[in-house]
Amino acid sequence: MVTKKIALLPGDGIGPEVCRQAVKVLDAVAERFGHRFEFSSHLVGACAIDATGNPLPDETLAACRAADAVLFGAIGDPKYDNDPTAKVRPEQGLLRMRKELGLFANIRPVTAYQALLKHSPLKSDRIEGTDLVIFRELTGGIYFGEKGRNADGSAYDNCTYSRPEIVRIANLAFQSAASRRKHLTLVDKANVLETSRLWREVVRELAPQYSDVTVDYLFVDNAAMQIITNPKQFDVVLTENMFGDIISDEASVIAGSMGLLPSASVGAEVAVFEPIHGSYPQAKGKGIANPLAAILSAAMLLDHLGLTAEAALVREAVDEALTNQILTPELNPTAPYTTEQVGSYVAFWI
Amino acid sequence: MVTKKIALLPGDGIGPEVCRQAVKVLDAVAERFGHRFEFSSHLVGACAIDATGNPLPDETLAACRAADAVLFGAIGDPKYDNDPTAKVRPEQGLLRMRKELGLFANIRPVTAYQALLKHSPLKSDRIEGTDLVIFRELTGGIYFGEKGRNADGSAYDNCTYSRPEIVRIANLAFQSAASRRKHLTLVDKANVLETSRLWREVVRELAPQYSDVTVDYLFVDNAAMQIITNPKQFDVVLTENMFGDIISDEASVIAGSMGLLPSASVGAEVAVFEPIHGSYPQAKGKGIANPLAAILSAAMLLDHLGLTAEAALVREAVDEALTNQILTPELNPTAPYTTEQVGSYVAFWI
Ligand SMILES: CC(C)[C@H](C(=O)O)[C@@H](O)C(=O)O
Ligand SMILES: CC(C)[C@H](C(=O)O)[C@@H](O)C(=O)O
Repeated sequence: MVTKKIALLPGDGIGPEVCRQAVKVLDAVAERFGHRFEFSSHLVGACAIDATGNPLPDETLAACRAADAVLFGAIGDPKYDNDPTAKVRPEQGLLRMRKELGLFANIRPVTAYQALLKHSPLKSDRIEGTDLVIFRELTGGIYFGEKGRNADGSAYDNCTYSRPEIVRIANLAFQSAASRRKHLTLVDKANVLETSRLWREVVRELAPQYSDVTVDYLFVDNAAMQIITNPKQFDVVLTENMFGDIISDEASVIAGSMGLLPSASVGAEVAVFEPIHGSYPQAKGKGIANPLAAILSAAMLLDHLGLTAEAALVREAVDEALTNQILTPELNPTAPYTTEQVGSYVAFWI
Repeated sequence: MVTKKIALLPGDGIGPEVCRQAVKVLDAVAERFGHRFEFSSHLVGACAIDATGNPLPDETLAACRAADAVLFGAIGDPKYDNDPTAKVRPEQGLLRMRKELGLFANIRPVTAYQALLKHSPLKSDRIEGTDLVIFRELTGGIYFGEKGRNADGSAYDNCTYSRPEIVRIANLAFQSAASRRKHLTLVDKANVLETSRLWREVVRELAPQYSDVTVDYLFVDNAAMQIITNPKQFDVVLTENMFGDIISDEASVIAGSMGLLPSASVGAEVAVFEPIHGSYPQAKGKGIANPLAAILSAAMLLDHLGLTAEAALVREAVDEALTNQILTPELNPTAPYTTEQVGSYVAFWI
């Protein structure tokens, strides 16, 4: 029996409605196991800009720091979509949150669920049995380097990586590999980039500490092909921020639906759990948003709190929903269930 | 009847053997149409390092400059593969060639050939009918920015783009779109990168000059999903160097085989035509390398020389080989033909 503070950042679009289902499931877990989860809800993204002018209010940041874990929905609103140059944008809230909370590792498991094989654009025999996890560096690289315009009108973005930035996430990835199929693949562009050469050096230096883990090195262009032609070859994939953004979204097609993919963004003190899908504003309030990615993010949150039996139970309940086709319309167009119904079904199984 | 100088840079691995088939086909074209193609062969890549210590000897560069077009094979040798930090590497020859010859636009058409649908990892109904072309900027961005190490051991790579660098390739891409299905998609990361915001600005400024072309903007992570889930939505895709490297290799899986994809790298004065596949050293000398990508690169070369009827004939001959399954083992494992045989068959049809 534990008591844990969970900060909820539902955000925009379908964020609030999928978060609600995750909370429902966490409530069921608390009841079943006699835990106490104390939820508090905070603004982030477009709704935070509307209310406060700031996509990440100080109050929200403080609440994240005070919490044992953070559950995040999604951010983004169409009114900002066509203007990536606007001064204040929802994404800035996300990027600042990562930086301020030191969320240096974004962890994304990708599984090819049997029940969803037919939904993937990839042929079933290529993806069946895929079980990989991507470790994307999240607070460094070209995302956070100096950027701007020169007097001659040219633009620049600088990409920098320090050894400690690489060491900390590489250690996490090695540990994960050691607990899984003992295979780590570093994705880089070491034939062109100096930062990639540093990534390779650091990973090579750390490798002897994880002597049972086999390490492979793959150039990012090749990885972009391999991950869809033969995803089963991968166990743990480690990469820098920008490559991770691209490769992890690409890999999401393996699952057949973005609506099923959870993620964790972890730092030294705080960890944030969120579905990888966006705010999908067109679906807002229609009851058609798939809550399973948010629910599986809650399962990762439980693991993070050390509640592994609880996490396993949530995953089993999700498997029940998949097996019995208790699914939202994108996965079950003929006999669809609503967001609420899918959430309740999973909660019921806890 | 024309006389043209073609510089051959066969390179390493299977480069020479596939180039030979392209030359065979060009010879057949010359005979049939009464043209004269003067070929000269030059070193590049690992073989150039072995012979001269330099992956791109001055003699080779001078020959490219003096030629009407360049046909390139592939570069790379396993002895350099595991050491991207080696001082002299085959890739440096490629990168220097691009820079020295000012090859600012890499153009890659991607077609889903009916006869090859079964070879793609993607489901046929998703890719059937795909006909897109990627314009990748090739001499700027993070590839050619300042890079190095700082005193504290950190590494950096700078990404810079000037307006003129973007304008010249954007104009090419717009012109291509105007002659095709009139749809241009800019792939960038304008929600994070300043260089991407400049790309968007420039493309927006140019758009009114091509008023019949519809322009879309897609973030690169989304593009990495879209290009495999729904490739038919694309006509012309325009992007910067690093994103183009990743997206174009990813898109190659649509064709079912790297062995079929040609490319052109064009500059203000010289243009280089090359298959997108690598040097595939394991296959060298075995007669199993697919020469069709090199042959289709020769077709692009003919187009570039203004010989469009000749180019069309080469493509028809390749279609004959595909329809009649006169293909190397990766595409026809049960009744394979050799590299030489496939080349001769295509030449025969000219
Ligand atoms: C919204 C955007 C800034 C963000 C990123 O690129 O990191 C998103 O794509 C993600 O992957 O979380
Ligand atoms: C070999 C490498 C430097 C090169 C690149 O990244 O440009 C290759 O991947 C390509 O796409 O031609």
